[in-house]
Amino acid sequence: MTFDVLEAIQTYVRYPSISTDPAYKEGMAAARQFIATLLAKLDFRVKLIPTSLHPVFLARRDGARSHPHVIIYGHYDVQPPDPIEAWTTPPFEPHLRNGRLYGRGTADNKGPLMAYIAAVARIAEQDPAALPTITFLIEGEEEIGSPSFTDFLHTHKERLGGDLILLSDTSSPDPDHIVVTTALRGLTGAQVEVTGPRIDLHSGLHGGAVRNPIQALSKICASLHHDDGTVNLPGFYDDVVPVQDWEREAVARLPQSLEVYQRFLGVTDCVSPPGFSPLEAIRFAPTLEFNGIGGGYQGDGTKTIIPCKAQAKITCRLVPDQCPDTIQRCLIETIHNRCPKGVTVHCTPTPGSASYLVVPPGRPNTPPDQSPLLAEAFKATETAITAAFGTPPLFLRGGGSVPVIADFKRVLGLDSVMIGLFTPADNLHAPDESLHLGLLEKGIHAIVQILTHLTKAP
Amino acid sequence: MTFDVLEAIQTYVRYPSISTDPAYKEGMAAARQFIATLLAKLDFRVKLIPTSLHPVFLARRDGARSHPHVIIYGHYDVQPPDPIEAWTTPPFEPHLRNGRLYGRGTADNKGPLMAYIAAVARIAEQDPAALPTITFLIEGEEEIGSPSFTDFLHTHKERLGGDLILLSDTSSPDPDHIVVTTALRGLTGAQVEVTGPRIDLHSGLHGGAVRNPIQALSKICASLHHDDGTVNLPGFYDDVVPVQDWEREAVARLPQSLEVYQRFLGVTDCVSPPGFSPLEAIRFAPTLEFNGIGGGYQGDGTKTIIPCKAQAKITCRLVPDQCPDTIQRCLIETIHNRCPKGVTVHCTPTPGSASYLVVPPGRPNTPPDQSPLLAEAFKATETAITAAFGTPPLFLRGGGSVPVIADFKRVLGLDSVMIGLFTPADNLHAPDESLHLGLLEKGIHAIVQILTHLTKAP
Repeated sequence: MTFDVLEAIQTYVRYPSISTDPAYKEGMAAARQFIATLLAKLDFRVKLIPTSLHPVFLARRDGARSHPHVIIYGHYDVQPPDPIEAWTTPPFEPHLRNGRLYGRGTADNKGPLMAYIAAVARIAEQDPAALPTITFLIEGEEEIGSPSFTDFLHTHKERLGGDLILLSDTSSPDPDHIVVTTALRGLTGAQVEVTGPRIDLHSGLHGGAVRNPIQALSKICASLHHDDGTVNLPGFYDDVVPVQDWEREAVARLPQSLEVYQRFLGVTDCVSPPGFSPLEAIRFAPTLEFNGIGGGYQGDGTKTIIPCKAQAKITCRLVPDQCPDTIQRCLIETIHNRCPKGVTVHCTPTPGSASYLVVPPGRPNTPPDQSPLLAEAFKATETAITAAFGTPPLFLRGGGSVPVIADFKRVLGLDSVMIGLFTPADNLHAPDESLHLGLLEKGIHAIVQILTHLTKAP
Repeated sequence: MTFDVLEAIQTYVRYPSISTDPAYKEGMAAARQFIATLLAKLDFRVKLIPTSLHPVFLARRDGARSHPHVIIYGHYDVQPPDPIEAWTTPPFEPHLRNGRLYGRGTADNKGPLMAYIAAVARIAEQDPAALPTITFLIEGEEEIGSPSFTDFLHTHKERLGGDLILLSDTSSPDPDHIVVTTALRGLTGAQVEVTGPRIDLHSGLHGGAVRNPIQALSKICASLHHDDGTVNLPGFYDDVVPVQDWEREAVARLPQSLEVYQRFLGVTDCVSPPGFSPLEAIRFAPTLEFNGIGGGYQGDGTKTIIPCKAQAKITCRLVPDQCPDTIQRCLIETIHNRCPKGVTVHCTPTPGSASYLVVPPGRPNTPPDQSPLLAEAFKATETAITAAFGTPPLFLRGGGSVPVIADFKRVLGLDSVMIGLFTPADNLHAPDESLHLGLLEKGIHAIVQILTHLTKAP
């Protein structure tokens, strides 16, 4: 049986596995079931392990050579597709055009996960003895901050075992230049609700007597950045570890100009905090972003009210060694301190994760106790990617958050090798998300080489 | 035929005549048709006069005595009912409970307008000779700022004629204390849209490189008020006419304590600009309010994006002699000046109206050229209200806007007598809008007296 990776991804994308919205419970279950069936056919022993929200999926296949035991991490959940009207083709009806597969989750993370399954299938078919022991560890809460995953790791630490984590849930600049990610940003945040009068009020009859919740929320939100774009929370930058020269040099080697990046973003001016170019800031700078805001009348025309409430969703991206819990407490306390008189504010914390740096061998800041297997994996990755893509990989921090990376180190003691199999052009978390099929195929080749090489590791 | 005013209001309220939303075109037409049929039965000659949006409704009945010719103004459009889930009974299914009729438009303006029709019907039945010439002038764009009405007045000035305007689209403090409104606040405003990246961006992959449109919008909105709650627009207060002592004294005589008002609003602290108590501020202070704000992800859970745009709806309530066009230009220019780098801002002006003071006879600031008919109408109103309600009316400014009042003076040269037939407890523009039936009945009695008395005016 030859594994048809494209067909597998298309089927997988059709299941709307949106973890943040309870209405998509069936889509979540169907996506799990599909992967379970697929891996069972490849001789994996599949287990679904319940959590308080979405089950974690565990599938193990003992290799001809048991060392190393490689854990391949992925997630089966996807982001919501809104604004749905902005999609060229429906988000859950995958569509092939111009060498790309369009659909929600094609790039994040259904396509890249399927690259690993395809690589395993190819080795199993051609040379099963070259396969190490492999565990697929696939969670369903990555897009909502992996709230159950830390507990899961603690509880199932012994059963998991493992020597190294492999994953592809990070970005590369373009389909010809692959980044091996050395760190991700952490995440923390809060949802803010400002409450004023008991009901929406006529702004003529009552305007002048009450604090407008939107005004109060705007004052709070506007206070969270200095004019230079830095975050205005007390102590926000206290624990930030300085960026190393080799890291800035890797940014300089990126095959991407600011002009092209700006055009891609569709902005006339990039805006980055002092000390960072925009291409540095998205990797090295901690941020505070407003993901959503709402209050009052948002329909057509005018409605002259003072709304009874207004809400905002805030998340911070964190860098080493900022502590998500500390920053979150500070954020919530600051919001309370800055709330004007006449309204009340309530904050709901959102799940967080820390940022964790994996330094490749030979760098000035490589930890002296780095594991030989990690060094070997980095070398295997460099060789395999150079062979498959014709260019050596860049070792570089990424700006996104994979909350589990720090947990793999902290709870399991395991390092992660993160190979970027999507690019900014893939529109992650946005309309018209897509997967570049050339990158996918070369990625599968590289993964075949890496897995095969690792069976020879010391 | 005895006119059943309650049944008439109920039928009228069932037509969802929402002027701001094109989806309710049929509701608008049905509301017009209902009133047309009703007035035709009372011997009015009914004309529908098209405008570029919603037709104006004109109905004339020649009285046994032709002088004075009284124009009774009203509007057949209503506010949208959202948030619809907050209504106890559906907004367009009128419901009687506890001496009130609930439904959108019961108080603003369908019930009060019907009080005039009922008064005319009663006089016509009992003593038709006591009726002056009456024109009902009912527009369909009051809730969206009467964009067509000024042009209408200019075009139909001659046909309209008239000696005085009577209307009830203003507030009284409670069903036993009636306010005759001496001025209304004007209105101006703009819708603001801040645009950033071409699509929603992943806040991890791109956070740090672009200005977040919600952040920019918050900065703009937060800049529009000083910390003391006054409006921070250059020159905003330049043309404000000082409040007279008799006006502040009328506020002091209101049968309403701040504690009760605060409880009604459901706020722990009222917030009013310096120099005004809350009960003064809602009548005498110009304001800038945010009626709505929106941007990014507003659903359940988190979605870690930098949104491509964010919007806000802003309106200002104006006092004599602020000019709506000047303030609007200043608002839009200031928003442009204060928009941070990296995003673009676009403002759409919303229709405006000026504030205009009608001073009752015998006050220090009564204009020397005040018309004898207005003085007579004020006296008739004072007598009729004292008789119907057992308490003399308060002559006082109101905080709402009836954009046409200044136009009636400016275009037609006519003064307006504004009798408050709803109260703050009626929840105008909000869920559970209702009409107090005791107030309605006494109001009809007073209107009968006023119309009858005016036929004896000099």
